[in-house]
Amino acid sequence: MNFKLTIQYDGTDFHGWQIQEGLRTVQGELTGALSLIDDREVAIHGSGRTDAGVHAQGQVANVQLRREITPEKLRSAINGNVGKDVRVLAAEVVADEFHARYSALEKTYLYRIVNGAVLSPFWLRFAHQEARPLNLELMRDCAAAFLGEHDWTAFSAAQSDAESRVRTITSLAVTRHCDRLAAAEMIEIRASADGFLRYMVRSIVGTLLAIGRGDLDQAVVTRMIAMRDRTAAGPTAPAKGLTLLRVTY
Amino acid sequence: MNFKLTIQYDGTDFHGWQIQEGLRTVQGELTGALSLIDDREVAIHGSGRTDAGVHAQGQVANVQLRREITPEKLRSAINGNVGKDVRVLAAEVVADEFHARYSALEKTYLYRIVNGAVLSPFWLRFAHQEARPLNLELMRDCAAAFLGEHDWTAFSAAQSDAESRVRTITSLAVTRHCDRLAAAEMIEIRASADGFLRYMVRSIVGTLLAIGRGDLDQAVVTRMIAMRDRTAAGPTAPAKGLTLLRVTY
Repeated sequence: MNFKLTIQYDGTDFHGWQIQEGLRTVQGELTGALSLIDDREVAIHGSGRTDAGVHAQGQVANVQLRREITPEKLRSAINGNVGKDVRVLAAEVVADEFHARYSALEKTYLYRIVNGAVLSPFWLRFAHQEARPLNLELMRDCAAAFLGEHDWTAFSAAQSDAESRVRTITSLAVTRHCDRLAAAEMIEIRASADGFLRYMVRSIVGTLLAIGRGDLDQAVVTRMIAMRDRTAAGPTAPAKGLTLLRVTY
Repeated sequence: MNFKLTIQYDGTDFHGWQIQEGLRTVQGELTGALSLIDDREVAIHGSGRTDAGVHAQGQVANVQLRREITPEKLRSAINGNVGKDVRVLAAEVVADEFHARYSALEKTYLYRIVNGAVLSPFWLRFAHQEARPLNLELMRDCAAAFLGEHDWTAFSAAQSDAESRVRTITSLAVTRHCDRLAAAEMIEIRASADGFLRYMVRSIVGTLLAIGRGDLDQAVVTRMIAMRDRTAAGPTAPAKGLTLLRVTY
């Protein structure tokens, strides 16, 4: 049976999603639990890799199991055999053709920024802090320039095994609200696309932050995209502010 | 000069507020930083002790310093010398008579409960999980019985150095909402009083949970209060769900 799993994790203490010998990873932790359940080495397929320190509110994976087990029992069995910083929220039986990576239509990421002098301990793990004031109008204007289909060479890792660097960003929203927990301004950047390259969201966020601080001009950004030129990009924003919100199928 | 400090902390890795030889405590951490700043041993007074594992969104403390320093610089200097899980949000100069403990008029605590089969990693440090369904109507009815002035012997630590166990609860609200982060029901219990005895909030919450699960009858609770009888109380709810929200002066 093919199971679809919806998974949350606090990425702080993981070396990312992808299984790596000798390192604690989300895929490694889940593979261990599932191999116990199915009594053999199983392969779990994620919708995509998340980097070290990146969190997930709705990561999706699928796994083919030989054992007959109800989704409810599968969820409990996995959660009983992994660390408390990773949780399967839901398990369901899906068609054999379903593949968490190849069947994905859209992904949405959220980047959280506490914009103030102090980073609340309640956001220490899940938000990046920017003490300097940010011009939201400039950030929003620039975000519009990122929309649509582009070659994202200028906004992704130099090394990549992706066949194409063309992706379509369908939505890029910059919002601000007063966060009760932190007693500070919280800026959220929400990005949806048919797929993201490695470091792409964090590179876009780093550039938007540079725009917001007034360190970078929007004309430069437009030129960067057109020229596929990485050199002028803002610094890649820290992993801990980033959360994979959901994957749409 | 007398400074009033508003402080947040994630209580997970602290042995509570009160300074203790050889243990990491919030008061100990702040005393160390302030003694460096004032170049002598200083005493910092909190509005009250919080137990090991209890958090604070708005703890208040005051400290008398000899050194001339602006509130802004004091805040930065403290935050630069304590762990990131404790932060001074605000510092201000107050009258010499102000004392964080003796001047306090009201305190408000918040207790968070994730009511569902899975505890989201995002609430692992800051909420208690209750997998069984809870009857909110029963909990609210019972909460009303706790309001007003009572002797709280039945709902506080057996050992106490408090002169009187009489306190007045001015508000005790039980609310439920769907938490986006956890994709689960979140129940919040918010309690305000002129003061709380040790374990008082957690003891009341433990009793409300027992009522909500149907393990305890409201008549028993009313009798417990009247008889000052601790034996029938629900178990003290875990520290990690509890947060000191604010102190009013």
